[in-house]
Amino acid sequence: MKQHQLRVSPQTMHWGYFSKAVAPALTIQSGDRVTIETLTHHANDDHERMVAGDPGAESVFAWTNEYKAMPRRGAGPVTGSFRFGEGEGLGVHLLTGPVAVEGAEPGDVLEVRILDVSPRPSCHRSHKGRCFGSNAAANWGFQYRDLIEEPKPREVVTIFELDTTNKEAPFARAVYNYVWTPQTDPDGVVHATIDYPGVKVDHTRIKKRENILRNVTVPARLHFGTMGLAPSESDYVSSIPPSYTGGNIDDWRIGQGAKMYYPVAVAGAFFSVGDPHAAQGDSELCGTAIECSLTGEFAFVLHKKDELAGTLLEGLDHPLLETAEQWSVYGFTYPNYLAALGPDAQTAVAQHSSLDPAMRDAFRKLRRFLMIVHKLSEDEAIALMSVAADFGVTQVVDANWGVHGSIRKSVFAG
Amino acid sequence: MKQHQLRVSPQTMHWGYFSKAVAPALTIQSGDRVTIETLTHHANDDHERMVAGDPGAESVFAWTNEYKAMPRRGAGPVTGSFRFGEGEGLGVHLLTGPVAVEGAEPGDVLEVRILDVSPRPSCHRSHKGRCFGSNAAANWGFQYRDLIEEPKPREVVTIFELDTTNKEAPFARAVYNYVWTPQTDPDGVVHATIDYPGVKVDHTRIKKRENILRNVTVPARLHFGTMGLAPSESDYVSSIPPSYTGGNIDDWRIGQGAKMYYPVAVAGAFFSVGDPHAAQGDSELCGTAIECSLTGEFAFVLHKKDELAGTLLEGLDHPLLETAEQWSVYGFTYPNYLAALGPDAQTAVAQHSSLDPAMRDAFRKLRRFLMIVHKLSEDEAIALMSVAADFGVTQVVDANWGVHGSIRKSVFAG
Repeated sequence: MKQHQLRVSPQTMHWGYFSKAVAPALTIQSGDRVTIETLTHHANDDHERMVAGDPGAESVFAWTNEYKAMPRRGAGPVTGSFRFGEGEGLGVHLLTGPVAVEGAEPGDVLEVRILDVSPRPSCHRSHKGRCFGSNAAANWGFQYRDLIEEPKPREVVTIFELDTTNKEAPFARAVYNYVWTPQTDPDGVVHATIDYPGVKVDHTRIKKRENILRNVTVPARLHFGTMGLAPSESDYVSSIPPSYTGGNIDDWRIGQGAKMYYPVAVAGAFFSVGDPHAAQGDSELCGTAIECSLTGEFAFVLHKKDELAGTLLEGLDHPLLETAEQWSVYGFTYPNYLAALGPDAQTAVAQHSSLDPAMRDAFRKLRRFLMIVHKLSEDEAIALMSVAADFGVTQVVDANWGVHGSIRKSVFAG
Repeated sequence: MKQHQLRVSPQTMHWGYFSKAVAPALTIQSGDRVTIETLTHHANDDHERMVAGDPGAESVFAWTNEYKAMPRRGAGPVTGSFRFGEGEGLGVHLLTGPVAVEGAEPGDVLEVRILDVSPRPSCHRSHKGRCFGSNAAANWGFQYRDLIEEPKPREVVTIFELDTTNKEAPFARAVYNYVWTPQTDPDGVVHATIDYPGVKVDHTRIKKRENILRNVTVPARLHFGTMGLAPSESDYVSSIPPSYTGGNIDDWRIGQGAKMYYPVAVAGAFFSVGDPHAAQGDSELCGTAIECSLTGEFAFVLHKKDELAGTLLEGLDHPLLETAEQWSVYGFTYPNYLAALGPDAQTAVAQHSSLDPAMRDAFRKLRRFLMIVHKLSEDEAIALMSVAADFGVTQVVDANWGVHGSIRKSVFAG
């Protein structure tokens, strides 16, 4: 077992996509551990608190008229003239990796254990050692076309401070919020809405509102919103819609102590992780969580395809969560939208967003799990799901909407 | 404060509908307590275990060629020739009540506290003192047209035994199951599927499968699936679709310690309760929970409309749950399907079932709650929902599908 480290840098990160085509940031063997730093792509909502003075973050977000450290942001075009910027923001998450796993092949399953998660403190002299995150009620949020107060529509950024002093009961409190105003990037593109990740918000052009969410304490649930493997269907796949190799699942249960199992779709598996969250509710209603840079301690175990029969991984073709208390499967509008929707899948998927097929998919996946892993008949599995499994709304903001189905391990304790 | 008792009987129950038109079984004053017995409408899935020897249950389920104790079952026709039976099974739940509350008027809010819940033991000599329930994977279940094993489609009844010896950790275990076979009722109608409530299953015409769900323990969650007030829109309203006055919400959180708040739609409020459940998961996937007769201890508090301003009940036009830990609102495909769908609403609603508008409705209701009750701005409410509220699938089997939105009280503890 080797212990590795992946720090954030333009060389160890990619922005807005999963990819089987980019060079691995690290190659490991099954059983290895890796400390992986991640950065929230919303850090520039408050550059002072979340970027300034942090060598890693500054190296990644560096963008001037002359120099853009990470030019491609998204799976969109990289040549021609851009509407929003290189990659077109078709995918938004800063991801660390890929981590290649030696010997991994399609048909295998990669187990990823999250051993520890800790926040990345501010390096700015005024905020040193304190931790911050950003929540954006954005144009892709469930509320955007359904607001009641003026002006409509609007995007709102809320900055939170995270307090992890008591590791058993971490929490976050709001610091201030502001309505998004048009922001001009170093290339001269005006971003009237949040349409491209990493644009630095000019704080002279916004109006901060303080004393918000007074006496409100948000229980923290540190987790990684986006984590998974490169799909095989395309070289560059938007990081927004979750799919059969995981990705932007946005389940707050994917935190410390969780094990995720992903089907390997490409040689080397190509694991990437980002979209770190300090807290999120089931649905991620307004489009984001408390987006907050985190560092995780991960262990990787490769399960070869010829060793899966008779294990809980037999036939697994979708992400699966195991925690100390439960298992969860993830249903999506399309289990594999890339295969279902063809060449335009990455843009077309957002036109089909619905919870109804996601519920259907979650039902089928949990039934399969109970029949294969727990050797139940279909009738036993269905009765058990109705009386003991809970289905929840994972997210309604990631184009390929999600419903999770969970069953407690104690049900099988005998 | 007076203490009342409502035992089960044909005179104290109505079957398959909420109604402002039937005579109250009991009239109380605000502040009174009532011990209310309820019966599961699935008791005749195993008459021996759940009806035989129980004077109350026998009086209600009595049905011979000459005598049908409770003829009307559902909000459907009561004259002419029937396809399924009187009332046509348009609504299926045995409900105890109505309980009229003196002085209740439209615009008021009725608070219903569940102080205690206990199971109703078998009276049959072979099973005396033990408690049983039935789960039916039925034709209205989410799985019915999506089965993988033969024969397809099929309905399956699973009988569970409930053990409440340890009141802190009650549980249920499966006893046996059977595939539904055509059952002939005393009037000669053959029920090829579960299409009319209370038909006694002839156990010589089914094949019991034992040793099912071996080593599986279902944590019990005693609650009332159907509980609420009479709507104003019709004299007889199917008990199946939940709506603005509550009804068949099917949330397992509506158990001991819960408080429900319902908007009063008719003079006297007309509260009814039934559909008792020993356990259910979020979604009630296959169409039912563990349907199990229960007795509840209830307290009623009437909040008059001119006293609601500035309280958590201000402007409440939908059911609201309060427990020790959280509040929940209930979103439905249609917040008020009776008003939305017109004269054919009770049959038409099933053609529109979808989680997407239910999620929309739950979002709007929780936003309103946070803005009115907690004095948040819309921007504060939306950020808070995204990072701290959880939305789940309440049910996908009651025609008017449900999504609940929950927020923990600890968030506001300061």
